[in-house]
Amino acid sequence: MPTEPEARLTSKAFVRPGDRPCPDDRAPASESQFVRACKGQPTDCTPVWLMRQAGRFIPEYRQLRARLGFLELCKKPDLAAELTVMAVEKLGVDAGIIFADILLPLEALGVGLEYAGGEGPVIGRPLRCREDLSRLRLFEPADSLSFVLEAIGLARSGLPATTPLIGFAGAPFTLASYLVEGGASRHFENTKRLMYTDRSCWHELMRLLSQLTADYLNAQVAHGVQAVQLFDSWVGCLSQADYREFVLPYTKQTIAALSATVPLIHFGTGTAHLLELMLEAGGDVIGLDWRVSLSAAWARLGERVAVQGNLDPVVLLADQAEIKRQTRRILLEAGGKPGHVFNLGHGVLPTTPVDNVRFLVDTVHELGGR
Amino acid sequence: MPTEPEARLTSKAFVRPGDRPCPDDRAPASESQFVRACKGQPTDCTPVWLMRQAGRFIPEYRQLRARLGFLELCKKPDLAAELTVMAVEKLGVDAGIIFADILLPLEALGVGLEYAGGEGPVIGRPLRCREDLSRLRLFEPADSLSFVLEAIGLARSGLPATTPLIGFAGAPFTLASYLVEGGASRHFENTKRLMYTDRSCWHELMRLLSQLTADYLNAQVAHGVQAVQLFDSWVGCLSQADYREFVLPYTKQTIAALSATVPLIHFGTGTAHLLELMLEAGGDVIGLDWRVSLSAAWARLGERVAVQGNLDPVVLLADQAEIKRQTRRILLEAGGKPGHVFNLGHGVLPTTPVDNVRFLVDTVHELGGR
Repeated sequence: MPTEPEARLTSKAFVRPGDRPCPDDRAPASESQFVRACKGQPTDCTPVWLMRQAGRFIPEYRQLRARLGFLELCKKPDLAAELTVMAVEKLGVDAGIIFADILLPLEALGVGLEYAGGEGPVIGRPLRCREDLSRLRLFEPADSLSFVLEAIGLARSGLPATTPLIGFAGAPFTLASYLVEGGASRHFENTKRLMYTDRSCWHELMRLLSQLTADYLNAQVAHGVQAVQLFDSWVGCLSQADYREFVLPYTKQTIAALSATVPLIHFGTGTAHLLELMLEAGGDVIGLDWRVSLSAAWARLGERVAVQGNLDPVVLLADQAEIKRQTRRILLEAGGKPGHVFNLGHGVLPTTPVDNVRFLVDTVHELGGR
Repeated sequence: MPTEPEARLTSKAFVRPGDRPCPDDRAPASESQFVRACKGQPTDCTPVWLMRQAGRFIPEYRQLRARLGFLELCKKPDLAAELTVMAVEKLGVDAGIIFADILLPLEALGVGLEYAGGEGPVIGRPLRCREDLSRLRLFEPADSLSFVLEAIGLARSGLPATTPLIGFAGAPFTLASYLVEGGASRHFENTKRLMYTDRSCWHELMRLLSQLTADYLNAQVAHGVQAVQLFDSWVGCLSQADYREFVLPYTKQTIAALSATVPLIHFGTGTAHLLELMLEAGGDVIGLDWRVSLSAAWARLGERVAVQGNLDPVVLLADQAEIKRQTRRILLEAGGKPGHVFNLGHGVLPTTPVDNVRFLVDTVHELGGR
C-alpha cells in the first residue's frame, strides 16, 4: 500500500544537512528575523521566502494535484497545512505562507470559480454592471473561508514555534479585475471600462471588496499568522492618475482596517510607476518585482519602509552561477540596510528546478549574513 | 460587380467636414507639425497619430483581411500603401505609418513566420542555441524587404505632400524575444535563459539584429519616410541591470547607425523603470505608455527630449466624456511645452469604435491648440 502523500510531505529526508537558515532562529516567530526585517529592524542575516514556494515546481505538490483539484486541495485544511510546512522544510526558507488562493473570496461571493485544465481561473458569472453587483452573496470570512483559517491553525502547529507564518489576500483592485474580466486578462478591458463608465458601481464594488479583504486578513491574524501580504498583482496595468482615483482609497481602507499587530507586505508587479502611491496606501513592506532595483526603490520611498524582493523568477531557470551573480547584485543593492526581505519579484515558475530554489535560499543565507 | 476594396479605401467619403487637423498643414511633410514636435520645436497644436491606426478596428481593413492573410497583405505594396493612406484620411491624424509588421525581418531570416488563426505570430524554427544562430539566413533589407520599401514609395505619393510618413522596425531585444520564444510570451523564459546562460550567443544575436535593424530603417528613410519608430515593445520585462548589460549597447548601435536626417521615436511598454536607460540608448522622442505621466517622465528625462503618448488604449472603449476627460488630463500634464506628440500608450485595440478614435483625434486638435 503506497504511503499517503501527506504523510510523506513533511519527511525530514527533504532537509539537507547543509541548510543555513537565518541563525537567530531561537526567537519566537513573532520576533523572527523575517518579522524584524518587515518592521525595518536590524537582523543577523537577510531572511528569504518565495512567492508560490509550495507550488507546481515541487514534485510532491504535483503528486497531490494528480488526484485532487486545486480548489479541493485549498479546502482540505490538513493538506493545505502540510503543503505549507513541507515547503519550509524542503527549501529552508525563513517563513511559511499558508497554501491558499487569492480568488477563494470570489468563490464565496457566489460568482462561480473553476480552475479549468491548467488554463487559470475562470469566473462563471463575471460582474459587468450594477445589477451583477446586487447579486453578490456577502459573507463572513470566519464562516465561508473557515477552511483557510483552520489550515492556518494547523500549519501554525506544524511549523516550529520559531518559524513565522504569512497570511495573504488579493487586494481590492486585483480581486475586482478577476471578478469583472472573468479570469486572467491582458488588457483589463472590462475592468477599466466599468471603472470609466460606471463610477458609482466601481466605487461600491471596491468598498465591498475592501471591507471583505480587511475582515479576511484580520481573521487570518486572529488564527495565528505573524505577517500578511496583500497581493495587488495586476495593479501595474493602471496609470498613476487611475490608481489614485480608483484604487488608492480602497487599498488604504483595507490596510487601515487591519489589526496592527502584524506587519503587512504590499505587493504588486509592474509597479515601477506606482511605488510612492502604494506606499501612500500603506504597508510596512513594499513588495517589488525585479524591474526596479532595491536601491532605486529605497531612494524613492525613503529608508523608513522595508522592501521585499526582487529576483526575476526566470533567473531560477538559468544555472547556479547566474543565480549567485544576480543574488549578489540584489544584496549589494540592498546594501545591508535593515528592512530587506529577500524574495522573487513574482511567484516561482512551474518549470523551476527544485535544486535551484534550494541553492538560491542557501546563497541568500550565505551572502546575506551581516 | 463589387467595387474593389482597395479602390474604396481612400474614398474622400470617409473624411468628415468637421476635421480639424493641425492647422499649419501647408508646410512640407519634413517640416510638419509632427516632425517639429519630434525635434522638440514649437508647434501650433499638438500633433496626433495612433499606433495600429490602420488595424483591425477599421471595417475596411477587416474586409481586406477576409480575403487575404496578414502577411500577404503586408507583401502587396499597393494595398499596404492604400491602408496607410486610408487611415490618415479616415481618422484625420497628423501622420501616416507604413502598414507593415515588426516581424517581417524575422521571416526574411528564414525561421518561418505564420499568423495562425488570430492567435498571433508563430515562428516555425525558434532560435534556442548557437547552432540555431548559424542557420539564420542573412539578407539585405533592400532585397528581401523590398515590398515594404515599395509600399513606402507608394504611400508617400498617395499622401498629401504635407503629411509625414513614419517608418518603423522592431528593436533588437523585442525581435530577439519573438525569435527565441517562437511567438508572443508572458515570462520570456527562453529569451532570458539564453541571455543568462550563453552570453556570447546572445551578444552575437543582438549584434546581428542591431545591424539588420539599422540597415532596414536606413532603407526606409531612403525611400521617403519623415520619421522612424523603433518598437521595443516588450523590453519592459527586463530589470534595469539586465537592460544595461544585454540590450542598451545594441539599441544604441542601431540608433547610432541611422541616417541622422529624420527623427527617431524610441518606444516601449511597461518601461517606467527604464526611461533614463532608453534615453541613454538614444532617440529624439521617447515613447511612453499610459503608466507614467508625461510630466513625471519629462522631469526624469529633461525637457530637451520630446515625448510621445500616452492615453491608455482601453479609454477608447469607454464613452466620449471619459475620452475627453483623460485627453485633457494628458494635455495638461504636457503643459503645452514643445516636444509632445500625442498617441496612445500602445496600439488601438481591435474592439475600438472608429467614432471614438475620430473623436479622440478631434479632441486633441481642439484642446491641443496653442
